Amino acid sequence: MDGFADLDFAREERCGFPEVVFGAGKTPAQVASIMQALAAEHTRVLCTRASAEQADTVQALLSDAQWVSSCNLLYIDRRADGARLRGTTASEVLVGPQGEGCVVVCCAGTSDLAVAQEAALTARLMGSHVNLLTDVGVSGVHRVLAHADELRDARAIVAVAGMEGALPSLVAGMVDVPVVAVPTSVGYGASFGGIAALLGMLNSCAGGVSVVNIDNGFGAGVTAHRINVPPARFAGAPA
Amino acid sequence: MDGFADLDFAREERCGFPEVVFGAGKTPAQVASIMQALAAEHTRVLCTRASAEQADTVQALLSDAQWVSSCNLLYIDRRADGARLRGTTASEVLVGPQGEGCVVVCCAGTSDLAVAQEAALTARLMGSHVNLLTDVGVSGVHRVLAHADELRDARAIVAVAGMEGALPSLVAGMVDVPVVAVPTSVGYGASFGGIAALLGMLNSCAGGVSVVNIDNGFGAGVTAHRINVPPARFAGAPA
Amino acid sequence: MDGFADLDFAREERCGFPEVVFGAGKTPAQVASIMQALAAEHTRVLCTRASAEQADTVQALLSDAQWVSSCNLLYIDRRADGARLRGTTASEVLVGPQGEGCVVVCCAGTSDLAVAQEAALTARLMGSHVNLLTDVGVSGVHRVLAHADELRDARAIVAVAGMEGALPSLVAGMVDVPVVAVPTSVGYGASFGGIAALLGMLNSCAGGVSVVNIDNGFGAGVTAHRINVPPARFAGAPA
Amino acid sequence: MDGFADLDFAREERCGFPEVVFGAGKTPAQVASIMQALAAEHTRVLCTRASAEQADTVQALLSDAQWVSSCNLLYIDRRADGARLRGTTASEVLVGPQGEGCVVVCCAGTSDLAVAQEAALTARLMGSHVNLLTDVGVSGVHRVLAHADELRDARAIVAVAGMEGALPSLVAGMVDVPVVAVPTSVGYGASFGGIAALLGMLNSCAGGVSVVNIDNGFGAGVTAHRINVPPARFAGAPA
Amino acid sequence: MDGFADLDFAREERCGFPEVVFGAGKTPAQVASIMQALAAEHTRVLCTRASAEQADTVQALLSDAQWVSSCNLLYIDRRADGARLRGTTASEVLVGPQGEGCVVVCCAGTSDLAVAQEAALTARLMGSHVNLLTDVGVSGVHRVLAHADELRDARAIVAVAGMEGALPSLVAGMVDVPVVAVPTSVGYGASFGGIAALLGMLNSCAGGVSVVNIDNGFGAGVTAHRINVPPARFAGAPA
Amino acid sequence: MDGFADLDFAREERCGFPEVVFGAGKTPAQVASIMQALAAEHTRVLCTRASAEQADTVQALLSDAQWVSSCNLLYIDRRADGARLRGTTASEVLVGPQGEGCVVVCCAGTSDLAVAQEAALTARLMGSHVNLLTDVGVSGVHRVLAHADELRDARAIVAVAGMEGALPSLVAGMVDVPVVAVPTSVGYGASFGGIAALLGMLNSCAGGVSVVNIDNGFGAGVTAHRINVPPARFAGAPA
Amino acid sequence: MDGFADLDFAREERCGFPEVVFGAGKTPAQVASIMQALAAEHTRVLCTRASAEQADTVQALLSDAQWVSSCNLLYIDRRADGARLRGTTASEVLVGPQGEGCVVVCCAGTSDLAVAQEAALTARLMGSHVNLLTDVGVSGVHRVLAHADELRDARAIVAVAGMEGALPSLVAGMVDVPVVAVPTSVGYGASFGGIAALLGMLNSCAGGVSVVNIDNGFGAGVTAHRINVPPARFAGAPA
Amino acid sequence: MDGFADLDFAREERCGFPEVVFGAGKTPAQVASIMQALAAEHTRVLCTRASAEQADTVQALLSDAQWVSSCNLLYIDRRADGARLRGTTASEVLVGPQGEGCVVVCCAGTSDLAVAQEAALTARLMGSHVNLLTDVGVSGVHRVLAHADELRDARAIVAVAGMEGALPSLVAGMVDVPVVAVPTSVGYGASFGGIAALLGMLNSCAGGVSVVNIDNGFGAGVTAHRINVPPARFAGAPA
Repeated sequence: MDGFADLDFAREERCGFPEVVFGAGKTPAQVASIMQALAAEHTRVLCTRASAEQADTVQALLSDAQWVSSCNLLYIDRRADGARLRGTTASEVLVGPQGEGCVVVCCAGTSDLAVAQEAALTARLMGSHVNLLTDVGVSGVHRVLAHADELRDARAIVAVAGMEGALPSLVAGMVDVPVVAVPTSVGYGASFGGIAALLGMLNSCAGGVSVVNIDNGFGAGVTAHRINVPPARFAGAPA
Repeated sequence: MDGFADLDFAREERCGFPEVVFGAGKTPAQVASIMQALAAEHTRVLCTRASAEQADTVQALLSDAQWVSSCNLLYIDRRADGARLRGTTASEVLVGPQGEGCVVVCCAGTSDLAVAQEAALTARLMGSHVNLLTDVGVSGVHRVLAHADELRDARAIVAVAGMEGALPSLVAGMVDVPVVAVPTSVGYGASFGGIAALLGMLNSCAGGVSVVNIDNGFGAGVTAHRINVPPARFAGAPA
Repeated sequence: MDGFADLDFAREERCGFPEVVFGAGKTPAQVASIMQALAAEHTRVLCTRASAEQADTVQALLSDAQWVSSCNLLYIDRRADGARLRGTTASEVLVGPQGEGCVVVCCAGTSDLAVAQEAALTARLMGSHVNLLTDVGVSGVHRVLAHADELRDARAIVAVAGMEGALPSLVAGMVDVPVVAVPTSVGYGASFGGIAALLGMLNSCAGGVSVVNIDNGFGAGVTAHRINVPPARFAGAPA
Repeated sequence: MDGFADLDFAREERCGFPEVVFGAGKTPAQVASIMQALAAEHTRVLCTRASAEQADTVQALLSDAQWVSSCNLLYIDRRADGARLRGTTASEVLVGPQGEGCVVVCCAGTSDLAVAQEAALTARLMGSHVNLLTDVGVSGVHRVLAHADELRDARAIVAVAGMEGALPSLVAGMVDVPVVAVPTSVGYGASFGGIAALLGMLNSCAGGVSVVNIDNGFGAGVTAHRINVPPARFAGAPA
Repeated sequence: MDGFADLDFAREERCGFPEVVFGAGKTPAQVASIMQALAAEHTRVLCTRASAEQADTVQALLSDAQWVSSCNLLYIDRRADGARLRGTTASEVLVGPQGEGCVVVCCAGTSDLAVAQEAALTARLMGSHVNLLTDVGVSGVHRVLAHADELRDARAIVAVAGMEGALPSLVAGMVDVPVVAVPTSVGYGASFGGIAALLGMLNSCAGGVSVVNIDNGFGAGVTAHRINVPPARFAGAPA
Repeated sequence: MDGFADLDFAREERCGFPEVVFGAGKTPAQVASIMQALAAEHTRVLCTRASAEQADTVQALLSDAQWVSSCNLLYIDRRADGARLRGTTASEVLVGPQGEGCVVVCCAGTSDLAVAQEAALTARLMGSHVNLLTDVGVSGVHRVLAHADELRDARAIVAVAGMEGALPSLVAGMVDVPVVAVPTSVGYGASFGGIAALLGMLNSCAGGVSVVNIDNGFGAGVTAHRINVPPARFAGAPA
Repeated sequence: MDGFADLDFAREERCGFPEVVFGAGKTPAQVASIMQALAAEHTRVLCTRASAEQADTVQALLSDAQWVSSCNLLYIDRRADGARLRGTTASEVLVGPQGEGCVVVCCAGTSDLAVAQEAALTARLMGSHVNLLTDVGVSGVHRVLAHADELRDARAIVAVAGMEGALPSLVAGMVDVPVVAVPTSVGYGASFGGIAALLGMLNSCAGGVSVVNIDNGFGAGVTAHRINVPPARFAGAPA
Repeated sequence: MDGFADLDFAREERCGFPEVVFGAGKTPAQVASIMQALAAEHTRVLCTRASAEQADTVQALLSDAQWVSSCNLLYIDRRADGARLRGTTASEVLVGPQGEGCVVVCCAGTSDLAVAQEAALTARLMGSHVNLLTDVGVSGVHRVLAHADELRDARAIVAVAGMEGALPSLVAGMVDVPVVAVPTSVGYGASFGGIAALLGMLNSCAGGVSVVNIDNGFGAGVTAHRINVPPARFAGAPA
C-alpha cells in the first residue's frame, strides 16, 4: 500500500459493509492495491466509478473481479456459492441468489439508466432484493401508475431522474415508504448539470422524500439497503 | 402627468390591449395620474401589483376603478353593458359576460392562488373565457387526472406551481395545446424564492411548455389570451 | 371550505398518515377550516409552521388543538387514552405513551433546536419512539462519541446542523442505519441561509446519508418514521 | 428494444405528434432501435440532437431517414407524396409542400442559426408553414423594423438570441401574437452559457413573451406550432 | 473628526473632484462631521445615499446644504454666483448655469428615475451640461428612435435600465460615443435585484458599452463626466 | 454570402467604424465570406477571436489580411500608406504611424497579456495612439506607482486583471480620466472563470471605473478609443 | 441550564480560551444562563453578536459584564487587576494593560469599523497587544503606504474590507507575516452582501493571505491571536 | 525576458521569499526564462503548477531544477550543502536537512494528496519542518483522534479536504494553534468543483480556522510557514 492509504478494516463491523473504494481520481495501480488489501480481509469488495483501465489492472491481479461497464462498477464476491453474485451486466447480477426484502429502483429515461444501475447493484451487493423499473417518466403519467403494485411491494424506493426531477414527488404521493431521490446530470441548458433536478427534489411537496448528491446512485443504494434490511440487532423490532 | 411618463397610446392598436401599468415602485399619485390619462383614451385600463393605498388614491379620482385585493389587481372597464366586467373578487369577475374560447388556469396549492388569479383575471379582462382550477397538485396525481376533460377543452393552459414546479410537465403530458408555466415563490429553504420551480419548468421533459418569470401571473395571462384568441386578421386561419 | 381547498382524505390510506397542513402563507381562517375538515375524518391532524395567530384561531374552533410554540407545530390527537399524545412543549410530547422502535434526533447547537424539535415531534406523532440529543457538535467531537450507544440503539437517525453541516458525516461514520440530514439556516456571511450546510451534507463522504430541504424538520421526521416503523404489510419482513 | 425503453405509442393521439427521440446520451444502436419501433407505428419520426454517427447507424437501418447536419435533426417522413417533406438542409425542408398558418422564426446572428433551424424545422415537420428570418439583431434596430410586415403575418413568433437576449422584447413590442423566446449559449465571459440571455428574456418588459430552455429550439418549435395550428377539435373556435 | 475618518484632501487635485461621501451605513453625526471638514477645504461637497435624517443633521450644521430627496443626494455648492448650482429637485439643479459639453442620461421607466437622477446630478455638479430623457423603453422602440438627434448631440451617454436591461444595446447601436450602462434593481422574480439587467448589459452585442454596478448612478455620472470634459491638461488634444 | 448574414454596411457612418466580425462559432468559410464582403465596402476590416484555421482561409482569399496570433486578431488595413498599419505581433502593430491622443492599456501578469493586446490593438486600429504597460500588479504596488506619469498622460485607461481584479481601483485612485476595467478568466478555484475579478471591478471603491465583460479586450478597446478620440462633430468641444 | 446546552468546560485547556458564546439566535435568558455557567468556571467570558436586550439581561445577572455596543461584544473579565480589561468602547478596551506581541487590525472605511473592532477586541481579550488602523483604503494608496512601519511591527495582520476587498492583497505585498482577510457585507448592487469581497480575497495574488467568513471579525481575531502568541509549550521555538 | 515580465527582485527582502512563478498559462519558454532570471539573483526558485513540458524546458536550461510530478512543483535549491533540499518525490524532499519548528499538513483521502503535497513542499522549501499525515478522514473519526499528539506538536496546521470539507472543524476543535483550511475540487455533483468544501470551511463552527482558495496548496503552505517561523526581527517576541 506504500503509505498512500490507511484502510478502515473495522468499517464492516461498524457500518455493516466494508469500506467502498471511490475509483475516480485514483491511478489503476492505487485501485488495485487497495482492492487487494480489502479482499484479504473481506469476502466482498466494491469499487464505484471504475474505468476500463482500472478494471483491467485490477483483474490482472484479482482474476475474480467483475466489471459492470454500463455503470462503471467493479466488485469481488467471494461468499459461499448460494450467496455469491456474478455477472458483468446489471441484469445478470440482479437475477442472482435471493436477496432480502425488496428495494425498487425506478428511473425516467434511457439516459438515467447508468445511475439507476449503480443504485440497484449497490443495494443488491449489500444484500437486498432489487426490482429495477425503467422508462417510468412523468410526462406519460400512466406509465408510473401502471407500476403501482410493484411500488407498494417495496420497503424502500430509489427514484432517479434528470431534467425537472419530478418523478420522486409523483412516486412518493403513491406510497407509504421512504423514497430516496437521485438527481442526474442529464439535460441541457438551464439544467445546470443536475442542479434543476436536485432543487426540484429537495423541494418535493410530498412527504418521505430525501435526496442524495447528483448522479450518486451508490449513496442511494446504500441508503435504500439500510432502510430495507435492518442490522441484525433490530430483529424483533417493529416490522 | 408632469413629465415623469410618456405614455404609449398606440400600444392597443399595435399589441391588442392598452399599455398596462406596473404598480410596484410607483407612488399612488403617479399610478392615479397614469390611469386617468389612459382612461381618457381607452375603455379598459389595467394596473397590476396595486397596493391598497394605490387603489384608494385611484378610486378617489376614478370612482369606477375596481380593486381585487386577493391578487392586487386594479382595473377599469367602461365597455358597453353586455361586455363590461365588474367585481372585486376573482369569482365575481370570472362569471361576467361570456368570454371567447377557453383558457384553463390551474394551480397546486392555496398558496399559489394569488398568482393564478392574476393570470386568470388578466386573460379574462383581455377577452378570454377562463376556467380556474385549484388544488391540482402533483403529490395527489388523481386530482390532476380527474380534470382531464376540462384540460382538453382548453385552447391554452396556464399551470402555476411553487416548490418543485412539476405540475406543468404532468399537465403537458396530457394535452396537445400550449402550456404556459408560472413558477411561484412559494416554498422555503432551497426553493430560493421560486428558482427551484423556475428551473424545473424550464427543464420540463414534456413538449409544448414555455415559462414566464417567477410570480408573473400577468405575463402568463397575456400569453394564454394571445394563444386562445387570435388577432382579427387571422379569421379564416387554420382552427 | 369555500372552494379554496380540495382535501385528499385518502392520503392516510395511501401514505400512512393524513394530509399534513403547511401553515405558512395561509390565513388563520383557512388553517382552521382545513384542520376542522381533516379532524372530521381522522383522529390525528398536524399543521407545521403554525403562527401564534393561527393557533389561536384554530383553538377557538377546536379546543383540543395543542400548539408547541418552540417549533410552531399545531396538532390534534383524538386517539384512545393509552395512545393519545398531549403537551405544548417538546419534552411533554416526547414523554407520552410508548412509541414504536427508536428514532434519534441529534443537533449541534441551541440555535438548531427548533428544527430538531419539528423533526422529533413529527416522528413522535406518527408513532415512533424518539430520543432527542442536543449540543452534539463537531468542534467538540468527544460530545458526539459520548452518545455512541444511544446512536447504535436507533433504527433511524436525524442529524440537524447549520454552519458547515458536518454532523451527519461524523454520525454516519459511527453507525449502520440510515442518517437523514437536515441543514439549517443558522449561520451568517457565506452560510447563505443554509446552502453551505446543504452542500456539505449532499457531499458527505460517509455512506447512508440522505438530505432534506433547509430547515425541513418535518420532512426528516416523516422519513425517519417511515424507516423506523414499516407499514403493517411488511410484518415478517427481514428485521 | 431489449428492455431499455418502453415507448409511449399513444403520445400522438394524446399530444398531437408521436414521441420525439432526444438523441444526446444514447448510443447509435439505441437511437436506431427506438426510431425503428416508432416508424412501425407512425408516419413521422423525429430525433433531435442526433450526431453524424447516430445518423449513419439509423440510415443503415432506415434508408429514408434524413439528417439535417446544420442543426443535428434526424427525421423520417412517410406521409403521402403531397404532404411528405424531404431534404438535408434547412432550406430544402422549409420549401416543401404548403404548411398551415404561419410561424416566424427570427434570430440575431449567424451563431444562433443552428438553434433557429431546430425550431423552424420542428414546427415545419409538425405541420406549420415557417418563415425563417436571420440577422435580425438589436444593435442594428433598423434591420428588425424592416421585417415589420412579415412579423405581423405570423400567428406565432419564435425569437432566438444569445448574449443579452434583447430581441424578444423588441419584437414583442411590435406585435399582438405570442412570442416564444429561446436563449442561446452563444457569448463568452459573463454570458454564462446562456444564463444572461435566459434572464433577460424572463425579465422582458414586453407582454406576451414566454421562454424555453437555453438552446431548446425544439421546445420553441413545438410551442409555436401548437399556437399556430390548433387541434382539430377547436375548428370553429375564435379565429 | 474624532479619529474615525482620515480624509483625502488631495483627492480633488489628483482625481478632479473632492472625495465624495457615501452616506449609507454612516450615522448622521458622522456624515455631518465629514461634510463640515470637506467644506472647510473645498467649494463643492457631495454626499450620495443620504437619508432624510442625515440631511437634517447636516443642514443644522451647514445651512446651505441642499438635499434632493428623489435621489437621496445631498450637496453643498459655494462657488461664485455664475457657477453655483441650487435646488432640491432634479429639474431645478439641471437648469442652473451653463455646463460644459453634453451628457445624455436616459432611462426606461418611472421606476428607474431615481438612479437616472443620481447619475444626472452627479455629472452636473462635476461640471457637465446634462440632458435627462425619461420613458425611453425598448418595448416601444419608436420612443427611442424619436430621440436620435439628442443622442447624437451627446459626447457621452448614460443608459439606465432594469428588467432585461436592453436599452444600452439599442442606444449604442445608434451612436459613436461611449455608452455607460447602469443596471437597476427594478423588477421581480428572476431579475434577482438587478443581476438580469447587469448580465444583459455586460453581454451587450453593441460596441462601446461599459457597465457600472447595480443602481450605481453616481459611478455612471462620474464616468460620463470624465468622458465629456477632459482634464485641462488635454486642451489641444484631438476633439 | 448565401443568405446567412445580412451585413450592416451603414455601421461605420452611424457608429464610427465598420461592423466587426466575431470569429468564434463561425466556420472559416463564413468568416472569409463576411470579411470579403466588408472589405469591398471599407478600408479597414477587423475580426476578433479568429483561429489559425480561420486566418488561413481568409488569407487564401484576401492576401493582405494580417493575423496577430498572440491575441487571435485578424485585420485588413487598406488605408493610404502614411496611415496603414501592418504586422503580426502586437509590438509591430503598435509602433506604426502616429495615432491620435493617448490610451494606456495596463495589465497585471503575463497571463493577462492576450486580453490586453486585444484591447490595445483594437484601439490602435480604430485610430488611437496606445501605450501598453505590462507587469503592473497590485501585490507589488511600487510597480504601479512607477508608471504614474505615463498614466497621467492618458486620456483613457484600460486596466486588465484576473484573480481579485484590484488593479482598476488602484489606478483609478491615481488619475482623473475614465478607467475601463477588463476582468480576465485567469485564476483557479474560486475565481470562477473571471467572476471574482468581475465582481471586484464592479464594486470598485474608486470613481470613474466602468467594466466590460470577462476577457472582452475588444469592448474595452472600443470604449477607450471613443473616449480618447471624439467624433469629428465635437471639434471645438471642451478639451 | 435546563437541558438546552451542554457546555464544553474543557475547551480552554484544549483550545486556549473558554468556549465563546454566539449571541445571535439565542434568547436573552439563554445567553445569561450560559454566561453565568461559564463565569463560574473561567475568569474570562466572551459573547459575540450580543444585542442591547441580551446585554441588559446579562448585566442584571452579572453586574461586571461589559457591553461594547459599537461591535455588539459582551464580555466579563475577572482576572487580577494588572491584567483585567475594562471599558465599553473599543478605545477604552484597547488601551488597557499591556498585551503580548503585536496584532495590527486595519480597515478601509468607516462602514467596516464594527467588524474591525470585533476582530481587535477579540484578539485583545485573548491576550494580544492590538493596533487598530482605520481609513486605510486602496483608492488612496498613499494612506496604506504611510503605515508601512506599523505594518512591519506586527506579527499578524487582520485586513478588513468590503466592496472589492483589495486591501489584503495590497498589505500582503508589503509584509512577510500572515494576513488574515475579513470580507464585510458593506457595499450594494453586485457586492452581494460581501461575496464580491470574499471572492476577491480568496483570489488574492499575494502570498500569505487566508480568509475568514463575511463579517467574521471574531474568527479573524482568534486566528491572529493564535499566530501572534504561541501556546506556552512552544517557548523556545523559532522566533 | 523580452519585455513580457518585469520581475520583483526585492520580493525576498520585503516578503521573506523570492517571487514564486505560477506556471499555469505560461509557455515553457516563458517559465524557463523567468526562472533563469530569478536563479541569477536568488538561491531558491519555486514554480507551482508546472507541467512536464515546462519542467523539461527548464531542466534543459537549468540542470539542477527538480520536478515533483505528483504535485507539479518545480524548484531550484542552490543553498549550501547542509541546507539544500533535493528530490523528485514528496517523501524525498521532506526528509532533507532539519527544518524549523513544525507544520502538520493533513488530508482526508488519496485524491487530496496532490494539494496536500503542494502545501507541504512549499512550507518545507521556505524553511519549515513538515509532518504530512494522510487518510485522516471525518467518516472514520478514530483515525483523526489517533493523531492527536502529532497535531499538538504543530505550531501551524494545514487541513486539506474535498467533498463536505469537515476536517478543519474537527481538527480545530482539538488544538490551540491556527488551522489553515484548503478546500479541494475532489467530489462530484453538488460539490461544484470545491465550492461545497469551501463554504463548509468558511462556516466552520470552530475558532482559529482561516481558508485559502480551492486547491491552493501553495497559499496554505506559505501561510503555515509564516505562522510557524516568524521573521528574524521577532526574535525575543512571545513564544
